[in-house]
Amino acid sequence: MFNAEFVSGMALLGAGIAMIAGLGPGIGQGIAASKGAEAVGRNPEAAGKIRSIMVLGIALAETTGIYSLIIALILIFLKA
Amino acid sequence: MFNAEFVSGMALLGAGIAMIAGLGPGIGQGIAASKGAEAVGRNPEAAGKIRSIMVLGIALAETTGIYSLIIALILIFLKA
Amino acid sequence: MFNAEFVSGMALLGAGIAMIAGLGPGIGQGIAASKGAEAVGRNPEAAGKIRSIMVLGIALAETTGIYSLIIALILIFLKA
Amino acid sequence: MFNAEFVSGMALLGAGIAMIAGLGPGIGQGIAASKGAEAVGRNPEAAGKIRSIMVLGIALAETTGIYSLIIALILIFLKA
Amino acid sequence: MFNAEFVSGMALLGAGIAMIAGLGPGIGQGIAASKGAEAVGRNPEAAGKIRSIMVLGIALAETTGIYSLIIALILIFLKA
Repeated sequence: MFNAEFVSGMALLGAGIAMIAGLGPGIGQGIAASKGAEAVGRNPEAAGKIRSIMVLGIALAETTGIYSLIIALILIFLKA
Repeated sequence: MFNAEFVSGMALLGAGIAMIAGLGPGIGQGIAASKGAEAVGRNPEAAGKIRSIMVLGIALAETTGIYSLIIALILIFLKA
Repeated sequence: MFNAEFVSGMALLGAGIAMIAGLGPGIGQGIAASKGAEAVGRNPEAAGKIRSIMVLGIALAETTGIYSLIIALILIFLKA
Repeated sequence: MFNAEFVSGMALLGAGIAMIAGLGPGIGQGIAASKGAEAVGRNPEAAGKIRSIMVLGIALAETTGIYSLIIALILIFLKA
Repeated sequence: MFNAEFVSGMALLGAGIAMIAGLGPGIGQGIAASKGAEAVGRNPEAAGKIRSIMVLGIALAETTGIYSLIIALILIFLKA
C-alpha cells in the first residue's frame, strides 16, 4: 500500500506544514514595527537610530522563516 | 484506492485549513483597534488622524486573510 | 470503504475541531478584563462606565465562539 | 477494518491532543506573574496584597488545564 | 495492516510534533529580552542586575523546550 508516491505526498504535505512557521516572524516583526512607530512618535529626532535597530531585529527575526523556506524547498525538490 | 474523489476531498479540506489564517488579521486588527481606542482616549482631538492611520494599518493587515480566501476559493471551485 | 459512517465520523471530528475557536474569545475577553481591572485601579470612580464598555466589548468578542458552537451543533445533530 | 483497537487508539490520541490546552494556563499564568513582578517593583510595600490577587487569578486560570487533565484521564483509563 | 513500521512511523511523526513546543520558549524568551532591552534603556546603570534576572528567567523558560527535546529523542532512538 505504501510506496514512493506516499513518501512524495508526505514530503509535499510536510513542505506546506513547514511554512506555518512563517507566522512567527510575521508576528514578531509586526511587534518590532509597532514599537518602532511608537518610539519615533515619542522621539522623532532619533528616527534614524530607531530604524537601524528595528531593521536589525527584524532581520534576525527572519531567520526561522528562512529555515522553513529551506526545509520546504528541500522537501519539494529533493524528496518529493 | 486514491482517485479523483481523494484529490477533491483533500482540496476541500485544504480550503478549510487555509481559512485558519483568518485568525491572524482578526487578532492584528483587534490590536490596532485597541491602540486606536487608547490613542483617542488620550488625545480626542486627533481622532480623525488616528482613525485614518488605524484604518490604513487594518487594511494592510487584511491582505493575508484575502490571500487565504482566494486560495480557498481556487481549491473549492477549480480543484475540487 | 467510505460510507455514511465515514461522513458521520468526519462531522463529529469537525465539531470538535470547530470548538478550538473558543480559545480566541477566551483570550480576548481575558485581555479586556485585564484592561478593565487596570482602568478601575487607575480611576475607581469610573468603575461603572468601565464595566459597561468592557462588557460591551466582551459580548462582541463572544460572537465567533457562538458561531463555532452553532456549527458544532449543526455538525453533531444534523450531519452526523 | 475499524474495531475496538481503533476506538482505543483514537481515545489515546485524543488524550494527547487534549493536553495541548495546557499552553493556555501556562501563558496566562506567566502573564499574571509578569504583572505581579512589575507591580511589586513599583510598590514593594503592597507585595502581600499583590501576591494574594495574583495567586487567586493564577488559580482561576488553572481551571481549563484541569478540565483537560480530567478529560485525558477519562480517555486513557475509561475509553482506551 | 498495522505493524512495527506503523509504530515507528507514528513515533517519528510524534517526535516532529513534540518539537512544536519550542515556539513557547522562543516567544517567552523574546518577551523577556524585549523587557530586558526596555529596562536597560530606562536605567542603563542597572544593566548587570537586569541581565542576571533576565538570564535566570530565560533559563527557566527553556525547560519545556528541553522536555520536548528529550521526548523527541526518546521517540526517535528508543521507539522508532
